[in-house]
Amino acid sequence: MRVAVLGFGTVGVGVYEMLQQAQELEAGPVLVRPGKADAPFKVTDLEQILADPRVDAVAEVMGGVEPAYQYASAALRAGKHFVTSNKALVAARGIELNALARENGAAFLFSAACGGGVPFLHNLSLARESDEILSLGGILNGTTNYMLDAMQRLSLDYGEALQDAQRLGYAEADPSADVSGMDALRKIMLACAVAYDKLPSDGLLNEGIESITAADVAHFRSKGYTCRLLARGGRAGESVSAWVEPVLLRDGAPECAVLENYNMASYEGKCSGPIVLMGQGAGRYPTASAVLRDLSCILHGKLYMFQVDCRRVAADNNCKEQIYYVRLPAALAGDLPVESAELDGDTVRVVTRPISVSQMHVTAQRLRAAGASLFFAAIGG
Amino acid sequence: MRVAVLGFGTVGVGVYEMLQQAQELEAGPVLVRPGKADAPFKVTDLEQILADPRVDAVAEVMGGVEPAYQYASAALRAGKHFVTSNKALVAARGIELNALARENGAAFLFSAACGGGVPFLHNLSLARESDEILSLGGILNGTTNYMLDAMQRLSLDYGEALQDAQRLGYAEADPSADVSGMDALRKIMLACAVAYDKLPSDGLLNEGIESITAADVAHFRSKGYTCRLLARGGRAGESVSAWVEPVLLRDGAPECAVLENYNMASYEGKCSGPIVLMGQGAGRYPTASAVLRDLSCILHGKLYMFQVDCRRVAADNNCKEQIYYVRLPAALAGDLPVESAELDGDTVRVVTRPISVSQMHVTAQRLRAAGASLFFAAIGG
Repeated sequence: MRVAVLGFGTVGVGVYEMLQQAQELEAGPVLVRPGKADAPFKVTDLEQILADPRVDAVAEVMGGVEPAYQYASAALRAGKHFVTSNKALVAARGIELNALARENGAAFLFSAACGGGVPFLHNLSLARESDEILSLGGILNGTTNYMLDAMQRLSLDYGEALQDAQRLGYAEADPSADVSGMDALRKIMLACAVAYDKLPSDGLLNEGIESITAADVAHFRSKGYTCRLLARGGRAGESVSAWVEPVLLRDGAPECAVLENYNMASYEGKCSGPIVLMGQGAGRYPTASAVLRDLSCILHGKLYMFQVDCRRVAADNNCKEQIYYVRLPAALAGDLPVESAELDGDTVRVVTRPISVSQMHVTAQRLRAAGASLFFAAIGG
Repeated sequence: MRVAVLGFGTVGVGVYEMLQQAQELEAGPVLVRPGKADAPFKVTDLEQILADPRVDAVAEVMGGVEPAYQYASAALRAGKHFVTSNKALVAARGIELNALARENGAAFLFSAACGGGVPFLHNLSLARESDEILSLGGILNGTTNYMLDAMQRLSLDYGEALQDAQRLGYAEADPSADVSGMDALRKIMLACAVAYDKLPSDGLLNEGIESITAADVAHFRSKGYTCRLLARGGRAGESVSAWVEPVLLRDGAPECAVLENYNMASYEGKCSGPIVLMGQGAGRYPTASAVLRDLSCILHGKLYMFQVDCRRVAADNNCKEQIYYVRLPAALAGDLPVESAELDGDTVRVVTRPISVSQMHVTAQRLRAAGASLFFAAIGG
């Protein structure tokens, strides 16, 4: 199967190289920006690729929703299989692309969009065919895991941890998509859609790591806890729950063993029990290896990750109650149902009574809108 | 696809139940022993199944090499797809069954034979199509992991840990296949064959946990180490290496987080980097879920785990050098290249200089043949 590549950045180069090594796959033309076609295998006109009958599949590794969506649609209409690492594209337009792919008898796969080299979505899509998925989620963003790990093990403050991550290539110059939790949120959206045929596009809750301080980390450590940014999803009545938030885990929890920029994705099958997958969630070759795995799946005849009737829903995050750790101005502690509190100057460190995920996130939003500086994390698994 | 089930024990019942729930799969007849056909769906004659044109696939969950091999061959000759959880069968006759399956255009899959519900072989077989597998292995036996974990966290001695495991159904009345390491050894044989097209059927090295004592465990703990039984495999020149042995891991290593009867399988892809999978390695529903996953793969057109030219080889375990901890009679310490030693009465606890895996296992065998009681474990990862 001949595979054209759209984009020739970090991941594109990796995909192109791996295609040349692969047995049953061939590297087709590579689409680059105008003026960048400095080799015979590079082209600047998508039409050349779509009109080429020898090209069977297209791997999109450009990023961004447009023009990727336009290119994806055109490729599927031309009957080419479509594989992508672009989570923003699949989160925004995956439902439409799935329908278009099926109309045209072409594949639509996106393992590399969630977890880089970690085969999370692939195994989830296979498991749900014969087993009920009770819950899913995990550490789905390497940038934030690197930072939280560095703040803890190297005693760095937030700014130092971010600089360190950027120096190592684990964080972008503009890290907001990662540190805000948005990257992890998009991934849990995709995972819910694969497991439940419901893509939560509304009502999601998202808390990143932008508020954590070195003092917070020192406090957790003194109590034997490690902070990780976790994405969670599951069935919730007729809908699904989906959120991202920091979680404090007791030493010894598997998530504490996830260091640096590694990811840990997991799901619990009713029959299989808990299945945990760990690996590198980003980077040239890990991400490219996931694209190549999807292409191998197409060769075997596995063409889709979204079922026929996959559709958008509003998430329902009212169902799950948790205990939260909240560090906030002492004057505002009354806004939360407090189980215990430790005063520290003007600041108080609270452990709440059980409250819904919705209530916690909404309360935090409200307090911040009123100018309060606060950090919160769910406690335990 | 209609699936007949051979065997109606622990796993057979789970497979039959899951087939009834599954969407695109149907439960066919179940083969039981003579005299046990107490329901219409149970039959005692394999011919009834093989002659039935509505039966597309056969799932064998009986165990043992015969008559399973005879039934498997007959099913494949009849053009039925063949899925099994029987590691002894695949280790002994997988090469023949692979050839027979391909001759007859039928599938031959065995996810459930290695790691129960953990999708190790499936992911390995997909990864190797486009990536080079540098090494593989892990904690592949739940019985021994349960016992080692119980000896450590519950301070049990070997006999108590075994009784505990038997009480919980994690160990057989005759536990020798598990505690000797043979079960894990068969699994690493299969994994090597899936990754490298070479099934090491000779020259394997196998050390189980039968020699470990509570005193050994207390000693490791005092130094900050946890003992796990690890299977390892990798390329070794023109052949493959494959062995099973206890390993001492520093607190914080991922394997230390594998508790009770869980399994942890991993492989390192040249491009993907390390991929780790954890889950329940045995039990009715975890094992049945792996059988169902294989059946879903057949529906998608993925029919084989062994490549066309998969063949038997003699393992080469001379290549890797490791440091070992050895507890043995003080008089015999001279037989090993000693880095450091601690005397404890008549016994000495040695840390060796680097020696090959072969040398360690062969030396231990020789000393035991001369009547010595000893325990050894590799140190570190």
